[in-house]
Amino acid sequence: MGSSSDSRVMQDASKVLDQFKIKHEDQIVSAHRTPSRLAEYAQHAEKMGFHVIIAGAGGAAHLPGMIASHTVIPVIGVPILVYNDKHPQKNNTSKFSAFGGLDSLLSITEMPSGSPVVAVGINKAGNAAIYAMKILANEFPELKKKLIQHKSNQHDSVIKESEQLKKEGLSKFAKNKFK
Amino acid sequence: MGSSSDSRVMQDASKVLDQFKIKHEDQIVSAHRTPSRLAEYAQHAEKMGFHVIIAGAGGAAHLPGMIASHTVIPVIGVPILVYNDKHPQKNNTSKFSAFGGLDSLLSITEMPSGSPVVAVGINKAGNAAIYAMKILANEFPELKKKLIQHKSNQHDSVIKESEQLKKEGLSKFAKNKFK
Amino acid sequence: MGSSSDSRVMQDASKVLDQFKIKHEDQIVSAHRTPSRLAEYAQHAEKMGFHVIIAGAGGAAHLPGMIASHTVIPVIGVPILVYNDKHPQKNNTSKFSAFGGLDSLLSITEMPSGSPVVAVGINKAGNAAIYAMKILANEFPELKKKLIQHKSNQHDSVIKESEQLKKEGLSKFAKNKFK
Amino acid sequence: MGSSSDSRVMQDASKVLDQFKIKHEDQIVSAHRTPSRLAEYAQHAEKMGFHVIIAGAGGAAHLPGMIASHTVIPVIGVPILVYNDKHPQKNNTSKFSAFGGLDSLLSITEMPSGSPVVAVGINKAGNAAIYAMKILANEFPELKKKLIQHKSNQHDSVIKESEQLKKEGLSKFAKNKFK
Amino acid sequence: MGSSSDSRVMQDASKVLDQFKIKHEDQIVSAHRTPSRLAEYAQHAEKMGFHVIIAGAGGAAHLPGMIASHTVIPVIGVPILVYNDKHPQKNNTSKFSAFGGLDSLLSITEMPSGSPVVAVGINKAGNAAIYAMKILANEFPELKKKLIQHKSNQHDSVIKESEQLKKEGLSKFAKNKFK
Amino acid sequence: MGSSSDSRVMQDASKVLDQFKIKHEDQIVSAHRTPSRLAEYAQHAEKMGFHVIIAGAGGAAHLPGMIASHTVIPVIGVPILVYNDKHPQKNNTSKFSAFGGLDSLLSITEMPSGSPVVAVGINKAGNAAIYAMKILANEFPELKKKLIQHKSNQHDSVIKESEQLKKEGLSKFAKNKFK
Amino acid sequence: MGSSSDSRVMQDASKVLDQFKIKHEDQIVSAHRTPSRLAEYAQHAEKMGFHVIIAGAGGAAHLPGMIASHTVIPVIGVPILVYNDKHPQKNNTSKFSAFGGLDSLLSITEMPSGSPVVAVGINKAGNAAIYAMKILANEFPELKKKLIQHKSNQHDSVIKESEQLKKEGLSKFAKNKFK
Amino acid sequence: MGSSSDSRVMQDASKVLDQFKIKHEDQIVSAHRTPSRLAEYAQHAEKMGFHVIIAGAGGAAHLPGMIASHTVIPVIGVPILVYNDKHPQKNNTSKFSAFGGLDSLLSITEMPSGSPVVAVGINKAGNAAIYAMKILANEFPELKKKLIQHKSNQHDSVIKESEQLKKEGLSKFAKNKFK
Repeated sequence: MGSSSDSRVMQDASKVLDQFKIKHEDQIVSAHRTPSRLAEYAQHAEKMGFHVIIAGAGGAAHLPGMIASHTVIPVIGVPILVYNDKHPQKNNTSKFSAFGGLDSLLSITEMPSGSPVVAVGINKAGNAAIYAMKILANEFPELKKKLIQHKSNQHDSVIKESEQLKKEGLSKFAKNKFK
Repeated sequence: MGSSSDSRVMQDASKVLDQFKIKHEDQIVSAHRTPSRLAEYAQHAEKMGFHVIIAGAGGAAHLPGMIASHTVIPVIGVPILVYNDKHPQKNNTSKFSAFGGLDSLLSITEMPSGSPVVAVGINKAGNAAIYAMKILANEFPELKKKLIQHKSNQHDSVIKESEQLKKEGLSKFAKNKFK
Repeated sequence: MGSSSDSRVMQDASKVLDQFKIKHEDQIVSAHRTPSRLAEYAQHAEKMGFHVIIAGAGGAAHLPGMIASHTVIPVIGVPILVYNDKHPQKNNTSKFSAFGGLDSLLSITEMPSGSPVVAVGINKAGNAAIYAMKILANEFPELKKKLIQHKSNQHDSVIKESEQLKKEGLSKFAKNKFK
Repeated sequence: MGSSSDSRVMQDASKVLDQFKIKHEDQIVSAHRTPSRLAEYAQHAEKMGFHVIIAGAGGAAHLPGMIASHTVIPVIGVPILVYNDKHPQKNNTSKFSAFGGLDSLLSITEMPSGSPVVAVGINKAGNAAIYAMKILANEFPELKKKLIQHKSNQHDSVIKESEQLKKEGLSKFAKNKFK
Repeated sequence: MGSSSDSRVMQDASKVLDQFKIKHEDQIVSAHRTPSRLAEYAQHAEKMGFHVIIAGAGGAAHLPGMIASHTVIPVIGVPILVYNDKHPQKNNTSKFSAFGGLDSLLSITEMPSGSPVVAVGINKAGNAAIYAMKILANEFPELKKKLIQHKSNQHDSVIKESEQLKKEGLSKFAKNKFK
Repeated sequence: MGSSSDSRVMQDASKVLDQFKIKHEDQIVSAHRTPSRLAEYAQHAEKMGFHVIIAGAGGAAHLPGMIASHTVIPVIGVPILVYNDKHPQKNNTSKFSAFGGLDSLLSITEMPSGSPVVAVGINKAGNAAIYAMKILANEFPELKKKLIQHKSNQHDSVIKESEQLKKEGLSKFAKNKFK
Repeated sequence: MGSSSDSRVMQDASKVLDQFKIKHEDQIVSAHRTPSRLAEYAQHAEKMGFHVIIAGAGGAAHLPGMIASHTVIPVIGVPILVYNDKHPQKNNTSKFSAFGGLDSLLSITEMPSGSPVVAVGINKAGNAAIYAMKILANEFPELKKKLIQHKSNQHDSVIKESEQLKKEGLSKFAKNKFK
Repeated sequence: MGSSSDSRVMQDASKVLDQFKIKHEDQIVSAHRTPSRLAEYAQHAEKMGFHVIIAGAGGAAHLPGMIASHTVIPVIGVPILVYNDKHPQKNNTSKFSAFGGLDSLLSITEMPSGSPVVAVGINKAGNAAIYAMKILANEFPELKKKLIQHKSNQHDSVIKESEQLKKEGLSKFAKNKFK
């Protein structure tokens, strides 16, 4: 991730990977404050044999694209929109990105021809983790099975919610959902 | 609806239909987590003889368009923007749609030629319910009368507010409105 | 439609309805230049027993919402973005809507509670016609069959294109498509 | 104004007019819920000899344009974005406009050629009142003097703030401003 | 107007005023290239007894607001989006405004409290002229009659187009409209 | 791809894959016109052992997300904005997507938690192909070498252009670039 | 700055300059409420020998461009988006800018050819101060050294955070960051 | 500049600098295709004693921010939107940026705290050159005089156009302007 303020969003990726028992390294590499670390980190990633890099960044969000420039390891960008609910007045200051994350999304996807980065949705670090595992699953059949199981669990949980809705009625169901 | 988190918005549709005594079924069908249910649900809707389907979804909002692909029953899409006032920090996570609902609105309306879905405004589930009844009213003259009555009631309620405003003055009226 | 300049887009609706042999009336009613005709047209529509109204309008696009205010007949709005390829310099003048049609789309969908209008995508008059027929199909089983047939034809035409693509290869297929 | 929920914003116009002792009438006329009143209200305005109409509306915001269609009295539109701080969860429902008021702004300004409405900024009802008085000042030299005085007062108040800033220093000044 | 490149759009205002025989002065005053002329022009306008100023500007569009800061004469802003059909490659250079004119529209309307400017739609200089005449019509009953006649003519021209459409059919009508 | 009109853009992906000698299958699968083929195609892809799917779609762009719902193979979405330079008037009709492709980009990325799709930039099918190969390169060291070579070639080509610029001067260089 | 409500954001600039011991003057100059002061302030700035002017403004944000019209001193614009966390209901009134600051950003950057103003990001007054010092550093080698030291400190602080993250783990690190 | 396709826009900067006889170096440095050159180029710039760097880039536009990360020389970013009028069909491909340049503008301005880059308007390379000279003018009084003269010339050219307009009338003036 590009900044410590991205940590709350990016931990969603970390948790998903832990849950699937995928080894991963959590790191802060700032494209703008530690530019020299970009190339070093890319070399480190190559040497460690990383199969995929998840790069979360807000605002101008150059990190995913710049990491991708230094390596051929696939990079998944997470556009980050930080909201500080403990100190809402800080949302007005220079620490947080603007435009609902659109700036970060476009800064990740609109890369020039030949240097691709891909993006998941705003703040969807958890989805980036699942996508990373889809990439890994090409090589690890056990992981593929787990992902199929995960898909099936998702299906079952919707069915279960659907039945709960039928039992409770929509009004009560909605109230429980947001309490 | 596509997710249980849509329930708070979608219950507005349910309440309006209850108020007009229109039989309806409340269901969660996720285009992405239960894709196989899409075709099944469409068949169920055909078999049950549904006259209209109201499909609410947020984010990428594929549900309305995908349901419409499986049936010729008219589908009314409701773009959903979830706001969690109990747990505002969750608005920052991957559970809620971004861009003020524009993503969902366009994902519903910009269907290819030949596969139309229509949309009401963001979160306007109640309006979707009234529109559904306008469709039904072609077949059920009793319902048409009720809708005309409803229109008339709306008219009267504006007249009443207008008179209250004249009586109280704008300043007091505005204060009462938001207390 | 709200203006004669909407005619090129709106004829797509007319053609689709003709093709399905649905009786319809093509009319210009301007919300702003002929405001008194709004109520008259709504009464005319009620008297004629119209089952659905397709209202296309560009720019501020008040027509769909204003027609809907005068009747309980369901109104389908078509946001219109006019492009004048014969006289491109006119696209720069006051005759054509701006913002890629977003102004018109929101002006149609963001109606207040109780007064719904629905919208199809920008310029998708043909889709409005098909949606109108979906509404009518509730009452006319013959039309329902035709719509199912239409859906099936669409399916077959994709299959056919898909086979042609396989035969020609993507490069040649793409060239033929845009010649 | 188009709805009672617009009252909190529109009272800013009323207060400014009161302060300048300009006679005015506060009214709710809904383009969609009381369409027949539009023509009546325009006739009433003509009969009363109104010199200007300030029309505030949110969402699809048809009111300013529709009033303007029925009269040649100049209409000033106020795009309204309602925020309910007492009941924030209601901001998520169908009662309030979306897209930061852009929908309403465009719905007011993008009128077709020949039927102009003008707009002030989002929620700037007070500015609409001052603009209305600028129109009136063409006929009433006393009012013109008052407006020039008002401009001069604004100038002085900035000078005063500027001196206070110099005295307190920016840090203390900023703290006082937001306490 | 703020630049000679605004002339093609702004002549629409001039033509409408000529047609109604309203005396007016066409001028280029650049807020940025001739800042000292702003105050001079405002004084000139006061001295000449102008009743209304139409200020067209593209890009950052400061002209309308800055003129309004120097006078209490009502200012109507026209956001201008220049399109060069003779030399399309110039649309790519620094001479023309971006973002479909949204930058100019907001730069005109989002004035601070106390300093109002109003805007018509993008490039709608003709509408600005009609609005200017609505302002003047408060003082000049003859002009009011002309505006009512103009409204009536617009109505008749829609009726005429509507009849032509009925006679020709939509397909032929549309073809004629765009030839 | 979702439609034959996407073919001109999607052939860029095909060409890049051919150039790197990667086996691939070009197919049209329409989420809306051939919904039943979605599941079939996903099964086909699983059976064929596809390692990655590139799904290009315009407008509402449901195809990438819906394919991803049926399989755990990683899906790369290409938001497509079709421009018809041979028949520019067709850009005004219902066949082409609006909003500069933003609708398609968001429809691809804003997937719900648990069902990730990633996107490259608008029309960047070539980049999707390179990203696909980055995924494959985890398993195929030969391909990894080729990608590193490709990166190196890109580097050299910039150096070469840079030298040409120095030799020709910017003015002549720019003229040659766009002739 | 253009208004006292900009003070909370603009003090970030002041603090950074104080920290680097750069002499500076904090002032309120309103382009719209004190237009005559614009020229005076520009003359004052020339006479005082200012090397750079940081101009913060919200809403229509004409201040930076208008100051730049009166002087050749480089002007750095700060687009300001005010958020009032103490009195959130005031965010709904006419005192604060709309559209996430995009109106202000474009109003600063989209200046006509020949009259440049540059902008930093929304509310990034601190960055404007650092940029101002980069300009000054061309003349003052001591300042250049300090800026290089500042860059180095930023680098070290990321390294330190990065180590803390490694020690605490992402979950605990994220919790500490937002407490 | 980041790519040879930026050359047509960036030559505007070069021409302005030539006209003022400012020594400058025209270079292509791609953040993504030649990442290693970023640090080298920054060192080269420091060694050569550059006083300011103008960095033009389109799409994700990382170049200005990344250059700024490696040096304390002030960087002026030019967001570039390429339009290919010779081969309009190429505007549809992956070679050109989308979203009217907004992606590039935000990618330049929304830098994190401590690492500022400033931006001029979309494609306004000429303005970047003039701003660069404003920076230099702090050190070079001769240049300051030239800039004041340039400002004066701009003023005179508006006056001249203004007189021509008076002489020719708006209609003829507008025709001449666009021939």
